[in-house]
Amino acid sequence: LLNASPDLRAQLATTTPLHPRAGPRNSPIAAVVLTGAEVDQAAGLLNLRERQPLTLYATATTLRSLADNPMFSVLDPEVVCRRPVALDERFTLPGNIEAEIFAVPGKVPLYLEQGGRQVLVENEVNVGVEIAVGPAHLTFVPGAAAMTPSLGKRLAAADVVMFDGTVFTDDEMIVSGTGAKTGRRMGHMPIDGADGSLAALAGLPGRRIYIHINNTNPILIDGSPERMRVEAAGWEVATDGLEIVL
Amino acid sequence: LLNASPDLRAQLATTTPLHPRAGPRNSPIAAVVLTGAEVDQAAGLLNLRERQPLTLYATATTLRSLADNPMFSVLDPEVVCRRPVALDERFTLPGNIEAEIFAVPGKVPLYLEQGGRQVLVENEVNVGVEIAVGPAHLTFVPGAAAMTPSLGKRLAAADVVMFDGTVFTDDEMIVSGTGAKTGRRMGHMPIDGADGSLAALAGLPGRRIYIHINNTNPILIDGSPERMRVEAAGWEVATDGLEIVL
Repeated sequence: LLNASPDLRAQLATTTPLHPRAGPRNSPIAAVVLTGAEVDQAAGLLNLRERQPLTLYATATTLRSLADNPMFSVLDPEVVCRRPVALDERFTLPGNIEAEIFAVPGKVPLYLEQGGRQVLVENEVNVGVEIAVGPAHLTFVPGAAAMTPSLGKRLAAADVVMFDGTVFTDDEMIVSGTGAKTGRRMGHMPIDGADGSLAALAGLPGRRIYIHINNTNPILIDGSPERMRVEAAGWEVATDGLEIVL
Repeated sequence: LLNASPDLRAQLATTTPLHPRAGPRNSPIAAVVLTGAEVDQAAGLLNLRERQPLTLYATATTLRSLADNPMFSVLDPEVVCRRPVALDERFTLPGNIEAEIFAVPGKVPLYLEQGGRQVLVENEVNVGVEIAVGPAHLTFVPGAAAMTPSLGKRLAAADVVMFDGTVFTDDEMIVSGTGAKTGRRMGHMPIDGADGSLAALAGLPGRRIYIHINNTNPILIDGSPERMRVEAAGWEVATDGLEIVL
């Protein structure tokens, strides 16, 4: 159902038995749902450019950011249909998968920041995706700058939660000398701490998986104290090729 | 000296002992020479976006095409210096490597075509690169729509030639059902045939390596008749991780 492997790099791709493998360049990817126009969210589309029919779902803001980059016109509009989706509008992906895009507290893409100022927003610039098959549903939130009551409620109702695991501690990149910004400055709440995601999402009933993990985050190290803490709290750490059956 | 591996995907990157490995996110890439703004020539730059100081050399036309895509501004101009280079202007890369960009018969990038019309040109839109260390030099031509006397003369003088090996036969993609265009329509002369590169470059004195090889090209198959033909003619077939010492 869900394939978020890095070689696709478009954040969410759904596959469906309605599109069987056929022909030398066939692909099972029938639809792509983009959660934003950051490089790591959108650049993977440039790997799909061989006249492969698919539908691209995203907010109008994200589609506009793509359209502002002429390079993405290699995804020929005649074969790759852009479908703008309003927040909280339910739409149907191939394979009878219901989906919905919703706002998550976040920030504008780095390359659209004005003069380095951080702009925190809760609008269609930073979103999550809910995917439902029958009564089961999965909630995908790759970037969340903060927890809100409505986001917490949404996550509590999900059978599977995939959540922003960018950094373990807010100042991790500064301490490791890999960056000058905190996690929050980049639009990502940390895992650890009183207002981190581990505390905020303790006791969720569904399966919980950290995704979007920066290479400074010690939960990537099997057996590290931080990895053991998140696992003891019931979290999984996403890996390449992870498959989820709803 | 030369690393054109696909995970970099910027076409030509030079490394130098002047920039030793240091720090958690250091990279030995001190300079990138772009031969164009097609997706496969330029999109790899988006993997280099962690405030890594380097100099980007390209023609003004190529730099303008990049600037027209705001996503490339993740390569912060404060740390990634854009250096426009005129055709046939010799410039010096870090490590005392001399380089020169020259025009090759070619076409404009697909996404800049007007209404699907092919535009064949010999200007700074499609270029090759010459790299010299002392008296030795390498000539890099990833895309050539046709051979000309001046291109042939330039290649004959090189110690190492890396040349457009996109397709073996002009109609290869049509025959295999993977595309509707001939190699020439895409700006690439075929290897085979009376006016293919195998005939045009027979008897060159230097080392000859086919690069930019499409996945329909049978020279990729070890032991195929086509592979044996190019090898019998003195050509090598480039592989990932290929290293060249001049």
